Amino acid sequence: MSLIALLTDFGIEDPYVGQMKGVVYSRCPGADIVDLTHGVQAFNIHQGGFLLACSLDFFPPGTVFIAVIDPGVGSDRGIVLAETRTCWILAPDNGLLSQALDAGLLKTCRRFLGNPPSSTTFHGRDIFAPLGADLAEKQKVPADFEAFDPQELVRLYLPEPAACSTGVKCVVLHRDHYGNLVLNLDIDPWAGRLQGARMRIGGYEMVLVAYYAAIPEGCLGLVTGSQGKLEIAAREYSAARLLGLAPGDEALFSFMD
Amino acid sequence: MSLIALLTDFGIEDPYVGQMKGVVYSRCPGADIVDLTHGVQAFNIHQGGFLLACSLDFFPPGTVFIAVIDPGVGSDRGIVLAETRTCWILAPDNGLLSQALDAGLLKTCRRFLGNPPSSTTFHGRDIFAPLGADLAEKQKVPADFEAFDPQELVRLYLPEPAACSTGVKCVVLHRDHYGNLVLNLDIDPWAGRLQGARMRIGGYEMVLVAYYAAIPEGCLGLVTGSQGKLEIAAREYSAARLLGLAPGDEALFSFMD
Amino acid sequence: MSLIALLTDFGIEDPYVGQMKGVVYSRCPGADIVDLTHGVQAFNIHQGGFLLACSLDFFPPGTVFIAVIDPGVGSDRGIVLAETRTCWILAPDNGLLSQALDAGLLKTCRRFLGNPPSSTTFHGRDIFAPLGADLAEKQKVPADFEAFDPQELVRLYLPEPAACSTGVKCVVLHRDHYGNLVLNLDIDPWAGRLQGARMRIGGYEMVLVAYYAAIPEGCLGLVTGSQGKLEIAAREYSAARLLGLAPGDEALFSFMD
Repeated sequence: MSLIALLTDFGIEDPYVGQMKGVVYSRCPGADIVDLTHGVQAFNIHQGGFLLACSLDFFPPGTVFIAVIDPGVGSDRGIVLAETRTCWILAPDNGLLSQALDAGLLKTCRRFLGNPPSSTTFHGRDIFAPLGADLAEKQKVPADFEAFDPQELVRLYLPEPAACSTGVKCVVLHRDHYGNLVLNLDIDPWAGRLQGARMRIGGYEMVLVAYYAAIPEGCLGLVTGSQGKLEIAAREYSAARLLGLAPGDEALFSFMD
Repeated sequence: MSLIALLTDFGIEDPYVGQMKGVVYSRCPGADIVDLTHGVQAFNIHQGGFLLACSLDFFPPGTVFIAVIDPGVGSDRGIVLAETRTCWILAPDNGLLSQALDAGLLKTCRRFLGNPPSSTTFHGRDIFAPLGADLAEKQKVPADFEAFDPQELVRLYLPEPAACSTGVKCVVLHRDHYGNLVLNLDIDPWAGRLQGARMRIGGYEMVLVAYYAAIPEGCLGLVTGSQGKLEIAAREYSAARLLGLAPGDEALFSFMD
Repeated sequence: MSLIALLTDFGIEDPYVGQMKGVVYSRCPGADIVDLTHGVQAFNIHQGGFLLACSLDFFPPGTVFIAVIDPGVGSDRGIVLAETRTCWILAPDNGLLSQALDAGLLKTCRRFLGNPPSSTTFHGRDIFAPLGADLAEKQKVPADFEAFDPQELVRLYLPEPAACSTGVKCVVLHRDHYGNLVLNLDIDPWAGRLQGARMRIGGYEMVLVAYYAAIPEGCLGLVTGSQGKLEIAAREYSAARLLGLAPGDEALFSFMD
């Protein structure tokens, strides 16, 4: 099996993703292709890196991830191939691998030295897709890659959450389709630390719960989410809308004595 | 062939659908996966059940439908496997199978008694996808299912349309991408009953027509739609916007003398 | 390999695309299906024809394109099968093949004379999908097609750009996900002609650049895009929003002596 998973900020209104897939099938006819998501906010490398890192575990060995949030396309930013314990990731060297690197998921890195014919504005189709297809087909690193130390990858600044006796300061990593706000609070240890706490955010009481339907009416829930993080959710409503928060925003909640 | 069709309210901005597919390919490498739709309104079990029921016929025998509109995820709501004449459906037991049941499409039902390791917030990925993949791979009911009478499924209240000498009262089941409003009026018998009637809704004259381009300029059309129902459509415009109607709303139209 | 690529204005909120795929898999179980895009503006044959024509080259030989922007569905508009040098295209005969025809990409055309059982409102599922699946499976024209001269296809009026000493008048073909405005200006010869020109549009200075990150702050870029055309882009922002332009609109830019 040759499985390719695509993560981009391309959206799906355009033929961009489709053209990438056409190129993949041209070189790797037996491929299966999964749209991990194309809904990363335009140019939001931080959000893309988070969604990539928390998805790797759910794919079978040998999967080739092609991750293209790439505002620097056509400039001299590099192209890298990272190897996890079981999978491959092709990405621009612009910080998109920061979270995977920090989580210790990257075993090796290689830089692409080739210079194939390509548009200057769509390397996803013209460079990443052919490389990914060849890699998926042969499960072997294509020509023109040179190893380097993963610690030399371009990295994003990833803020850490902070807690004191009066509350917690954290950051919104992602706003999902339901308006749930995924925070940079790992379930372990934060669910334990906040167990039983009475919290307040933006005028709402918030309680730690294990699932969405357990959120009391009129409250917000701090829910043990599915991406390894705590997330703020409302009961069948958008917490993002209630709180006016978006990815990248700081979220502050206070303890109620 | 192992074909899996997904119907959810997950949207496609998030990696949720992609992670489900990663899990499917991990267990059933040869699968084909169809996105039936992920555009069901968040938490709208009624709409999801309708779209599921009217889609079953278009898929080949052996297809495994995984239907996840699941606001009760993590609570004690059940998980069921229904069998149609030719296909399988995995769904939460929350009413999502009501329309398929009412249409006589469900031959057998089984309840899932297993308790596999899972997040509390994403059974689609952690429970439904593995079960569906195993079922698609082996075309055999996985372990830990127990048969029960389909009549014991949780059911939604599905309102019936009503007609009198002055008009018809019905309900909007779905608002499609074009703004067409799909009604709970089966083409048979309603197209016959309304043939030749002069109707009025929301200040617009409405005529029964067989296709969209037959809608007279300035009128609305009551069109014999593709999902087995009559639908209100405007000529290359959104009837939903003209009438201010959405799924779940009542639609009333009156006969003109 | 049997590869089918779908281009429609169906959006993805509805089960329409999924039902088409169910029909394809029912008749061609080994097919791979690519969503080229379903984000063509509703009824916008012009935009759909452009996106189709500029995507053909990226798909492998034998690909069957099913292109359905079809406001006339159910009326007496024709259904055609066009053959390119390497691929097939099924489409309504409503102008959707105009750009491919003008670009000299169509070798032969056939009209469908069959009259299979079908809804009156969804030929994509009931006629195009079965025909496309059979064609992809057998790589042989199905029954009931009759050859005709491609020059007899229904054609759209495709305006030509015009330049004079003071500026250029062109048309927006497409607004992409980022808000980039794709123009009817072929990179060759227009990139050469506009090289070094100082331009102005809608109060902004605009410079010809090879990639997005090369757009100077505070300026717009006229970028050599990935679809063979020049496009107006802003630096990590939506040019469409800045200029208030949409597909079909005229774009005028003037030379700054």
